[in-house]
Amino acid sequence: MDERLYSTLLYDFYGGLLTDKQKEMFESYYLNDLSLREIGEPFGITRQAVSDLLKRTKNLLAEYEARLGLVARHKALSASVEALEERLGTLRKSHPDGNWDEVLRNIEEIKEL
Amino acid sequence: MDERLYSTLLYDFYGGLLTDKQKEMFESYYLNDLSLREIGEPFGITRQAVSDLLKRTKNLLAEYEARLGLVARHKALSASVEALEERLGTLRKSHPDGNWDEVLRNIEEIKEL
Repeated sequence: MDERLYSTLLYDFYGGLLTDKQKEMFESYYLNDLSLREIGEPFGITRQAVSDLLKRTKNLLAEYEARLGLVARHKALSASVEALEERLGTLRKSHPDGNWDEVLRNIEEIKEL
Repeated sequence: MDERLYSTLLYDFYGGLLTDKQKEMFESYYLNDLSLREIGEPFGITRQAVSDLLKRTKNLLAEYEARLGLVARHKALSASVEALEERLGTLRKSHPDGNWDEVLRNIEEIKEL
């Protein structure tokens, strides 16, 4: 998985444990695609200082993942749900008259959790 | 949900964020059912001190839940998977000849995640 995608996935799970300033900088860089210089301006800090703060935040998120493993669990869950979806798709083809719509709605619900 | 069960559920999700001492005390009390006095002895602290430390640990776990909501998400996921299981059980009865064993194995996998 590419670094940017992995970082935003970590942020999805552990962002709630960061300070407001850490969140703001992380979002500015990873979600809103601002430059390091642009991010530093309102705080009156250099691009190097922003880069250091972002690196520290990324290390913190990685530390949370090492302790709780939520991203790894999420990946395993997604893989299982996908496999289930595929099997049910096959079953549906051979038994099209069942009430599959509710089943598929259920799966969508699970995927969103 | 009763307090003891809820505390152990919080611990399942956030125990990885506690210190070794916090984990040891929490497990002694909630999982191994030791008394406050018994827990305090090896640390040379009173039952009141153990009680205070346990309360602080519980508050910390509750704070993590307020920030990340993993227990709430887990409950929602369990409810969705149960509903799915029920629907598939009904479908299976009306279409017993499909390959349901793999589907059920998949669901068990999801429940364990």
